[in-house]
Amino acid sequence: MRTEGQTSDIRCGKVTIPVEVALRLNSFFSSSMSCQPLSPQNFRDLFDSVEAFLFDCDGVIWKGDGLIDGVAETLDMLRSKGKKLVFVTNNSWKSRAQYALKFRSLGISVSQDEIFSSSFAAAMYLKLNNFPSHNKVYVIGGEGILEELQLAGFTAFGGPEDANKALDPKQNCFVEHDKSVGAVVVGIDLYINYYKLQYGTLCIRENPGCLFIATNRDAVGHMLSSQEWPGAGCMVAAICGSTQKEPVVVGKPSTFLMEFLLKKFNVTCSKMCMVGDRLDTDILFGQNAGCKTLLVFSGCTTQSALQDPSNKIQPDYYTSKISDMLDLSGA
Amino acid sequence: MRTEGQTSDIRCGKVTIPVEVALRLNSFFSSSMSCQPLSPQNFRDLFDSVEAFLFDCDGVIWKGDGLIDGVAETLDMLRSKGKKLVFVTNNSWKSRAQYALKFRSLGISVSQDEIFSSSFAAAMYLKLNNFPSHNKVYVIGGEGILEELQLAGFTAFGGPEDANKALDPKQNCFVEHDKSVGAVVVGIDLYINYYKLQYGTLCIRENPGCLFIATNRDAVGHMLSSQEWPGAGCMVAAICGSTQKEPVVVGKPSTFLMEFLLKKFNVTCSKMCMVGDRLDTDILFGQNAGCKTLLVFSGCTTQSALQDPSNKIQPDYYTSKISDMLDLSGA
Repeated sequence: MRTEGQTSDIRCGKVTIPVEVALRLNSFFSSSMSCQPLSPQNFRDLFDSVEAFLFDCDGVIWKGDGLIDGVAETLDMLRSKGKKLVFVTNNSWKSRAQYALKFRSLGISVSQDEIFSSSFAAAMYLKLNNFPSHNKVYVIGGEGILEELQLAGFTAFGGPEDANKALDPKQNCFVEHDKSVGAVVVGIDLYINYYKLQYGTLCIRENPGCLFIATNRDAVGHMLSSQEWPGAGCMVAAICGSTQKEPVVVGKPSTFLMEFLLKKFNVTCSKMCMVGDRLDTDILFGQNAGCKTLLVFSGCTTQSALQDPSNKIQPDYYTSKISDMLDLSGA
Repeated sequence: MRTEGQTSDIRCGKVTIPVEVALRLNSFFSSSMSCQPLSPQNFRDLFDSVEAFLFDCDGVIWKGDGLIDGVAETLDMLRSKGKKLVFVTNNSWKSRAQYALKFRSLGISVSQDEIFSSSFAAAMYLKLNNFPSHNKVYVIGGEGILEELQLAGFTAFGGPEDANKALDPKQNCFVEHDKSVGAVVVGIDLYINYYKLQYGTLCIRENPGCLFIATNRDAVGHMLSSQEWPGAGCMVAAICGSTQKEPVVVGKPSTFLMEFLLKKFNVTCSKMCMVGDRLDTDILFGQNAGCKTLLVFSGCTTQSALQDPSNKIQPDYYTSKISDMLDLSGA
């Protein structure tokens, strides 16, 4: 069920490569070249060629409720050398402001502008695609999506305010939907219900040209540390099932983030390095976009899993944890 | 998103044909042979060769809240000539007993045994596949599914009783699921919520060998006459999204009904006639199973739509409404 959700072709500098070709080239090069441990020499090459470091958070910056050793100093060093930092999260439940608070509670200072949550991605997708401001956005998801849409100047409704709306089948209910809704954004929704599913479906099915935007399609959400819960992929699939349409995906593994960084900061994908702890999501995502990739072992992948013959995904570099960059930089 | 959900190969008498071959043969013959209007001669041929008539309900038996002209007398005639009648509905919200009441309210007498609802199909699928009675069934769906499962001797829970269960993300909730659940049945659920999605997902993901059964995958449900609402396809897709697994489908267009009729009444598919008002669901469903097919114009398909060059689905016969059979029989 997980789809790639590529939003556009890959642009690297002045060259535009069709997505299919880029994927094949990446796959060819990544399978034919083995990855290297980060060393003083190749760290220098990486550091000099990269303008932006994109970090997955869980397993890279923090683990559970604790910060990983040396993270704060490493981020300070990268910033002091003029590198742009982007913290990427597929969790759309919170806004960037709420994420900044989480970083602060862990003792590191990260500005809102350095956070790329899938809630923010949804708002930026509409912005970059000139979504008319007189059109409204219906949200199936959390407060974070509404907040980001409103910050970007859009009129959004739904989400938490529809949490208690129910349908009584004994009454012949009729849901009147707003004809000015031009986009439905679907993310993880802990209060999903039949009313929201109906409302979103009506907008997508009946409002001409209405966009269907998925923050992401992760099967599993890490909302609570107690256990895994259904992720946005569950709610997105539900709307696919009722509308028979496929969404535009703006979070990982879609490369909309790279498109955004190119348009907003003029950073090309070849000058980005994706840092993550998962091969099949973070590293593949970075490779698909044409970024450099760095795997860290501070999360869920071990060195032996990386080097197992069954693993076909090879990052450019690997290292134990991101603070190794601090040691290698000599700072 | 709609999948065929074929549960097994096609058995016609003593011959078993692989599904893919049957579908191709059907498609070849149906596109190369044009269908015929029901006439005294071919009605006689059809009548003599068929042991069971399978009726779609909406647009064939009733339309909205009214019975279609001549239905009662036609059904009486067919029964009096020893034909088996089966009323097929994908709506799993009700049990067969509740459907029998609906027939009665419209002035026709239909026994529970003549109704094949997708709620009943789910129970019969477990029965025919020797589902151990010490295993439990978790239900995402309506009372109808629970009732049919209990009638068939299974222990089922979930459905309406979980309608008001909510998750408080501020508390670190943990859902403890029953390890003896061996099947999750998903149908249309007007009270779908995050708790049910989590419970069903946990059973499918964590209980070894747990079955994932979909009553059907219709995008749209006709629960209320006021407007179309998301169908079972919406809830089924949600569970596909969170489990990354595909279900066994027991309602239309799966041909489990034919498998059931063969096992229970020893009627082979070549001796069944599917009667419906929709080409892409009813008629295709009948053809895929190797049944005779009869299209009626009392529902949503017109004669010009049937004969339009863009239409590739050709039933064996077509007629205005099922009571034409009464006239042609000379009864």
